[in-house]
Amino acid sequence: MKIGVLTIGAELLNGSRIDTNASWIANAVIHKGGSVVFKMSVPDSESKIIKALNFLLSQSIDMLIVTGGLGPTHDDITAETLYSYFNDEPIFDDDYWDLLVKRFEKRGFEVSKLNRSQALKPLRGELINNPIGTARGLLFKKEKKDVFVLPGVPREMQSMMEESVIPLIKKRSKGKIFSCTLRTTGIPESSLYDKLIHTINNNQEAELAFLPSYLGVDIRISSDKEDVYNIFFNEIKNHVHEFIYTDEDVELEHVVVKLLNDKKLSISTAESCTGGLIGDRITNVPGASQALRGGIIAYSNEVKTDQLSVNEKTLEKFGAVSEQTAAEMAIGVKKLFSTDVGVSTTGIAGPSGGTKEKPVGLVYCGISINDKTLTFKNNFKSDRKINKMITSQVVLNIIRKELTKI
Amino acid sequence: MKIGVLTIGAELLNGSRIDTNASWIANAVIHKGGSVVFKMSVPDSESKIIKALNFLLSQSIDMLIVTGGLGPTHDDITAETLYSYFNDEPIFDDDYWDLLVKRFEKRGFEVSKLNRSQALKPLRGELINNPIGTARGLLFKKEKKDVFVLPGVPREMQSMMEESVIPLIKKRSKGKIFSCTLRTTGIPESSLYDKLIHTINNNQEAELAFLPSYLGVDIRISSDKEDVYNIFFNEIKNHVHEFIYTDEDVELEHVVVKLLNDKKLSISTAESCTGGLIGDRITNVPGASQALRGGIIAYSNEVKTDQLSVNEKTLEKFGAVSEQTAAEMAIGVKKLFSTDVGVSTTGIAGPSGGTKEKPVGLVYCGISINDKTLTFKNNFKSDRKINKMITSQVVLNIIRKELTKI
Repeated sequence: MKIGVLTIGAELLNGSRIDTNASWIANAVIHKGGSVVFKMSVPDSESKIIKALNFLLSQSIDMLIVTGGLGPTHDDITAETLYSYFNDEPIFDDDYWDLLVKRFEKRGFEVSKLNRSQALKPLRGELINNPIGTARGLLFKKEKKDVFVLPGVPREMQSMMEESVIPLIKKRSKGKIFSCTLRTTGIPESSLYDKLIHTINNNQEAELAFLPSYLGVDIRISSDKEDVYNIFFNEIKNHVHEFIYTDEDVELEHVVVKLLNDKKLSISTAESCTGGLIGDRITNVPGASQALRGGIIAYSNEVKTDQLSVNEKTLEKFGAVSEQTAAEMAIGVKKLFSTDVGVSTTGIAGPSGGTKEKPVGLVYCGISINDKTLTFKNNFKSDRKINKMITSQVVLNIIRKELTKI
Repeated sequence: MKIGVLTIGAELLNGSRIDTNASWIANAVIHKGGSVVFKMSVPDSESKIIKALNFLLSQSIDMLIVTGGLGPTHDDITAETLYSYFNDEPIFDDDYWDLLVKRFEKRGFEVSKLNRSQALKPLRGELINNPIGTARGLLFKKEKKDVFVLPGVPREMQSMMEESVIPLIKKRSKGKIFSCTLRTTGIPESSLYDKLIHTINNNQEAELAFLPSYLGVDIRISSDKEDVYNIFFNEIKNHVHEFIYTDEDVELEHVVVKLLNDKKLSISTAESCTGGLIGDRITNVPGASQALRGGIIAYSNEVKTDQLSVNEKTLEKFGAVSEQTAAEMAIGVKKLFSTDVGVSTTGIAGPSGGTKEKPVGLVYCGISINDKTLTFKNNFKSDRKINKMITSQVVLNIIRKELTKI
């Protein structure tokens, strides 16, 4: 099924926002048999929207997904432009207006008259439910092409795609596509490629793509033949299994929390350079409270000695950024919160604070499980925020690897 | 000067890569008097590239920037498609080939025959120098429109834009554009619009766009007239100043850390539902170590009583999610780490754990400065991760507001 995407908004063309919606849509439909063949962005200008619609609807596509410009302010002209383009007309939806008024009241705001535009519904077109926001979507049809109009707020657009658009793509696509994404971390793309080159060459009927990011490389495999897909999937899994943390669409922290909860183990965190990021990621997972007791953000040396019982002599002799300190921090937090596992980070996130012996990007991580304490040295080369993210990924992966051994 | 952008590459349409080139270009040209009015992406397909060129070159634009598909492999068809489209022909450039051979030798590689395609030059069109890569760019002209063809590798494209394209835009553009973004939080888009409607109507020569996200609304203002821009900027600032946290391109945490450091105040965090996110955000800012002593991630009740000295009776009588607990957590962490400011969060992030009296999304925040302790009740409605993000934004904004009073 061929799909066109039109994203609308001045912010997409003046450089103040990267168009993540278009690539989210492309990624979401591809596993369901959809394929984006044209992508276009125009500012909130009636004439430009019409030109884009004329162009896209004259291409051989089955569906057009339009996002953006459904908000309540003066520059949101998508709805009225499309009503007119498709010879439809908006009628006021009293029931929805009452609902909006109540929703705003609940949040402690008076609803603005501006929001009245969001209570309009098409006379002939259809409405698309918005499970989490106020702007509902629209569906128009032209010459067997479905034109979905969705808000530009990513979370709203995504939930509407998942609820209303993707099921339709799935239903209409002729053949089923068998696909999945194997998520890896701890190995660069080129090494992964070297390990898999024979498997890839022996399975020409299956498709494979590497999607690298600074947290790891996702391997996307797909085929329209189930047996081809299964063989390929298993071969790849066998060759690089130690780097794969999941074949589901979840982050590493979900895998870690599930492992902890399955094994009924508790955890605590002692974070210096990551500043709370590991705790944040763990608590992003529903059910994290079963495993996580608490954590210490130990940004100053006093916190390391007073709360985490790091020996003052250790700090003097080896420094705060050292494997000795990382080890004592992991042991200290494990004791403080009486948990089964304690983890720690201490490093120089940058941009300043580095020395010749201890450069920016030097990070030590520690993990203490039962009587075993391990430390890991890393040298990262990115900016402060990315160094923190990579460190948190390394620590979560260490927890995962150690827990699978127990 | 009106500009169209065409990015070419399968990876841009199958979701495996976000198109950052198009937004980089938009952002780079806007301050030089350029304005991107159409943006389009197509896969490496001759017919689709031609359709896109036909469409874009029939619009009222002065320049078209094409990126991607200039590499040496089989799927890079941009150059040959454009040679043919513009009735030009490639001739082999012996001098450049010699240079390429030498460059590869210097890096210890044998140059591949594949690279011969990169030594072609147009008979009638012009070449654009690539200061850092092997693929040179092309410049074709059609009906007074300049068509620049650049590689898709971001760093190469950027350096070629800076060296060859942007100086041209600057020279040809009539005037400078004055613009900035005012970042607000704590007020919905529609209420902001209500407050600014008169200012907007009275300044028709200036442009304004609202960029909402769940953390706040950015207001982008611009004009090609300096005095118009200054008046508009000041009027908007006056009307909604209490919601504006910066007019620079920084996050709220940067503003908070700067305030703390300017006032030489120290801070500590006690996080339950946010699980470390506030600490994480604060430590994203270089120089945070001057202000942040440490924090407690207090995910269990024991941590609240043992580390933060929350009274057990408070937990029994009012519960962990209550304004009383939030207040005692903020006071407790401030004392524990001997800081000037202590902040706290306690709430039900979801998706489970809610009751009728205390539903999912109920969050209490606390701040204790010197002898003053304040608490704030919030009802959020989003998912776990977004509830955490909004909570952290609310807390950082409370810190900002309280610090500006001191």
